[in-house]
Amino acid sequence: MTQDTFFQQVSDNAYQYENNPQAIEQESFRQIRELTDLSAFTQDQQQVVMRVVHSLGFPDVSTQMRFSQHATQAGREALAKHCAILCDVEMVKQGVTKRMIEREPLCFLNDPRTAELAKNKGETRSMAALSLWQDTLAGSVVLIGNAPTALFRLLEMIAQGAPKPALIIGMPVGFVGAAESKEALWQVHERLGIECMTLLGRMGGSAVTSASCNALLRCNIQEYY
Amino acid sequence: MTQDTFFQQVSDNAYQYENNPQAIEQESFRQIRELTDLSAFTQDQQQVVMRVVHSLGFPDVSTQMRFSQHATQAGREALAKHCAILCDVEMVKQGVTKRMIEREPLCFLNDPRTAELAKNKGETRSMAALSLWQDTLAGSVVLIGNAPTALFRLLEMIAQGAPKPALIIGMPVGFVGAAESKEALWQVHERLGIECMTLLGRMGGSAVTSASCNALLRCNIQEYY
Repeated sequence: MTQDTFFQQVSDNAYQYENNPQAIEQESFRQIRELTDLSAFTQDQQQVVMRVVHSLGFPDVSTQMRFSQHATQAGREALAKHCAILCDVEMVKQGVTKRMIEREPLCFLNDPRTAELAKNKGETRSMAALSLWQDTLAGSVVLIGNAPTALFRLLEMIAQGAPKPALIIGMPVGFVGAAESKEALWQVHERLGIECMTLLGRMGGSAVTSASCNALLRCNIQEYY
Repeated sequence: MTQDTFFQQVSDNAYQYENNPQAIEQESFRQIRELTDLSAFTQDQQQVVMRVVHSLGFPDVSTQMRFSQHATQAGREALAKHCAILCDVEMVKQGVTKRMIEREPLCFLNDPRTAELAKNKGETRSMAALSLWQDTLAGSVVLIGNAPTALFRLLEMIAQGAPKPALIIGMPVGFVGAAESKEALWQVHERLGIECMTLLGRMGGSAVTSASCNALLRCNIQEYY
């Protein structure tokens, strides 16, 4: 099928459309490369940026992407060792491609202990869930795609001496605290000695966060686009 | 806490941030109303548009939202009767707020029958999964947030006489077929006699799709923002 006929209406009730998943993915990333300014990024960073653009359908977002110096390498190495993957919400966990991981990602948001902690402390469940991260935080890859409060709390925990994850992918979306929490992550990461990837501004979300992790998993199996 | 101090850095290692979930939600929607042009929409449509903006962190997207004439009403009535909710992917299913529904949403993407159908037919699993929708399609609310091929296939099935859902929320994201499939939905819905909501262009995704359904569920319990 040529590019022009990837999708075409052939009659009132029928469409001709590419239905081979590999062909769809190849063509998607060909278009993303064409539409996105990737010149500022290393090869591995480009894979992450393209997955973020793919998840949002919005090439301009590349200008908002930030990577700490060894972020992709630290993430790839930790994932190659089957590190814990800690997620703020179930949708992020759901978005991590299962065929590429051996250990199920962790999310404590719906853990009964979390609801009780949140109630007792009068804080968000997203914040309370982090109390249950302590034991698995060291060397983990953290995915925060939804809750700015979780990202703020994590930064505070690390500043106060909590074990350090190998990589924080912090990309919460929204209007209250999302941009601020990502800016905070970007501002303090060097001082705290943590590797991170983030998407500055209001945009973000579960899909871009898990897609960023999936990009690193794909680099590890040499699946480059 | 005043608006100015919703988030504030109070020392090198500490942030002051609003951690009351209700306050965060109220303030988010106050900002969204301020930033988004909602003048073209009815009260219920506004609730959907604001949830979409909330999920994407992108107010400009409101200009791309489309509703068929009775879309919100048809969706609300079907959901009030605890209709089947059919999802193209697990992330969409995960995004539907569980406390507001009595029946678990359905997703057949990982059903063993789907993988076999896809292999035999040489098509995407997203398309193949729709073969398993037939029995529950009548009067359902359909959520397609990821796969353009699923949306194309659904339109073909309905054109060929398949039972009609009460509402199609069609908001796949991406570069190959996403914009085309949503344009097709918008162009044919009147002729096919179906109610629909869509977000034209490349943007969309699991989060906006389930958020649109959640907006209707909230209208049904008079939770307006």
